[in-house]
Amino acid sequence: VHPVFENLPTTIFEEMSGLARELGAINLGQGFPDDAGPEPVRARAAEALMTGSNQYPPMRGLPELRRAVAQHYRLSQGLDLDESEITVTSGATEALAAAFFSLISPGDEVVLFQPLYDAYLPLIRRAGGVPRLVRLEPPHWRFDRAMLEAAFTPRTRMVVLNSPLNPAGTVVPDEDLALLAEFCVAHDAIAVCDEVWEAVTFDGRRHRSLMDLPGMRERTVKIGSAGKLFGMTGWKVGFLCAAPPLTRALAAAHQFLTFTTPPNLQAAVAWGLDHHRDWFTAMPAGLQASRDRLSAGLVAAGFAVLPSAGTYFLNIDLRASGLTLNDRDFCLRLVREHGVAAIPVSAFYAETPVQHIARLCFAKSDQTLDEAVARMARAR
Amino acid sequence: VHPVFENLPTTIFEEMSGLARELGAINLGQGFPDDAGPEPVRARAAEALMTGSNQYPPMRGLPELRRAVAQHYRLSQGLDLDESEITVTSGATEALAAAFFSLISPGDEVVLFQPLYDAYLPLIRRAGGVPRLVRLEPPHWRFDRAMLEAAFTPRTRMVVLNSPLNPAGTVVPDEDLALLAEFCVAHDAIAVCDEVWEAVTFDGRRHRSLMDLPGMRERTVKIGSAGKLFGMTGWKVGFLCAAPPLTRALAAAHQFLTFTTPPNLQAAVAWGLDHHRDWFTAMPAGLQASRDRLSAGLVAAGFAVLPSAGTYFLNIDLRASGLTLNDRDFCLRLVREHGVAAIPVSAFYAETPVQHIARLCFAKSDQTLDEAVARMARAR
Ligand SMILES: CSCCC(=O)C(=O)O
Ligand SMILES: CSCCC(=O)C(=O)O
Repeated sequence: VHPVFENLPTTIFEEMSGLARELGAINLGQGFPDDAGPEPVRARAAEALMTGSNQYPPMRGLPELRRAVAQHYRLSQGLDLDESEITVTSGATEALAAAFFSLISPGDEVVLFQPLYDAYLPLIRRAGGVPRLVRLEPPHWRFDRAMLEAAFTPRTRMVVLNSPLNPAGTVVPDEDLALLAEFCVAHDAIAVCDEVWEAVTFDGRRHRSLMDLPGMRERTVKIGSAGKLFGMTGWKVGFLCAAPPLTRALAAAHQFLTFTTPPNLQAAVAWGLDHHRDWFTAMPAGLQASRDRLSAGLVAAGFAVLPSAGTYFLNIDLRASGLTLNDRDFCLRLVREHGVAAIPVSAFYAETPVQHIARLCFAKSDQTLDEAVARMARAR
Repeated sequence: VHPVFENLPTTIFEEMSGLARELGAINLGQGFPDDAGPEPVRARAAEALMTGSNQYPPMRGLPELRRAVAQHYRLSQGLDLDESEITVTSGATEALAAAFFSLISPGDEVVLFQPLYDAYLPLIRRAGGVPRLVRLEPPHWRFDRAMLEAAFTPRTRMVVLNSPLNPAGTVVPDEDLALLAEFCVAHDAIAVCDEVWEAVTFDGRRHRSLMDLPGMRERTVKIGSAGKLFGMTGWKVGFLCAAPPLTRALAAAHQFLTFTTPPNLQAAVAWGLDHHRDWFTAMPAGLQASRDRLSAGLVAAGFAVLPSAGTYFLNIDLRASGLTLNDRDFCLRLVREHGVAAIPVSAFYAETPVQHIARLCFAKSDQTLDEAVARMARAR
């Protein structure tokens, strides 16, 4: 067994969802909506199963989906992508794997920000990369010039940025994007941008891709997720967007990681991107209302709640809430004794974890959120 | 860009399917059926999209599917697998990637048989493995003790076996399985068995997994494919079957390669394995008739046809057919001038290719096969 995969614990998401299932708890842990996802998009996928092809689509994705993705990013983010710059993957996780395995050579340094999504480090290590971690802290979770100066070296080959940032719920401000772009250009580094939360921003904020900054167009791999765009996390349809020389390498890796992605889901995503565009206003508006509902309830129950500008998540500051348990112990007690699953944010740190923050997913019905608040009030 | 993925040509399958699309040729190249797949299984998947969950299933797969896979292998191959030994992947390609990335450490030697499926070598090289190739030749494509002795060394860590063998259309005989098992045990090697064609065997042959041989149960990773079982190659639902210590490592890699696989397809595959079992008699019987039809037509047209004991494929021996073109030139001429796409078997060799064999997919309607024969008759 390769050392990276030896004795790897189950992810915190599986652990907490498993506990929630076992104990019948409300699951505000793993990030997924509890509604069914847009009916017309699901209906298209069902129709394609019955009347369309169930055989291999082209390896880089259905042409209609690649066109629809390029147009979606034109309309929503003003990006100028050609369909030849899109590769469809079996979810954003596969897109990350393809980026790391194709673009990292052994010994390359990769700059990452903690808190970090759990897939990044094992994949980067398995690809032979050497992680250089920048540690972000609540409540603002921002980086600055000194932090980047400490992380970038002459061996820096890649930086990984997740914005909107899971679990922080922050959107990286334009000036910080500009600072990071400056470092990428100066170090001739590739940026792998995990932008799966791009459509989930609140209070009028519009997502901006690092790809959109001067000097970044040719050196950015932008990763998106139809599962997140349409709130159906099980669909596992992702996108890699990158200039042609990067796309060639990414597609070569994709070809041997999954080869292709179910055509009926691809066709439905293409249809949704083209014809169900009201969703991209209604969906974040609904989630913003859910965020506000959970936040207001938790504040009323005496929890200190950090702001959330995007993602499905908000965080409570246990210390500021007057609680002394660390985040993991708090979450274990919360699920076992009070029937609410949450995620300890320390699980997103590889070293020197922040240990006083717990993450809650608000992509749930009002009734579920209200019941969770009532239960959590008893955990204070 | 990592050297493995640098300047990698498009796969022969994409190349030939692309030419077929472009030229409007009959595509007997890439292996996929031209019928729609079993209607009741598709209907289950459609129903699950509309009424089931579209969110993350458990990382290792739906419990009902893991149970159904274990039972399917009990019924069809007499294997005694526990559902905890099954991991559902996004197709067999991802299963291969998970096996190679988790079980190979840099410098490990991996014994492989040519002709080989195009994903094996790039994945094994990217995982740090050192390939040791055993070269099989038509018409029998068999290995013997001397060939294994030349390939196995004290550094052998893994062997990869594909049986039924694509593109040869052979089923590895029991005595050859026993010989290979002897070498695996003697060298304490893991066997990664690509058995995606296990349900597609002809003339009363029953598939036997290397896993079933003495000493192999604990050291075999058996890979299956629902896309191949049900003739819907776009579904991309695969299985990894292995004893618990191997499964732990495989699941750790799977978790970061795709994490999970669309739940509606998983549910439909589970239903099909449980309730649509006549398919597993009807499907190979239908394919056997198609094989015989194509074979008879080609023989009548003057081609020398090699036997096919399994898979969707049969091969023609160009030399024995009195043709002097090499396989690649023959296939290019066939698609361009005569409107039939086939696959040159030399594409399955990494070194010293066999160059006089062309592979044809017979998983097509009678009408398509007849028209292909008529066109090919003109290519002699
Ligand atoms: C792939 S399981 C984790 C889902 C997710 O994005 C999250 O909960 O952070
Ligand atoms: C993944 S495309 C190749 C499909 C196949 O199994 C074949 O044609 O050999």
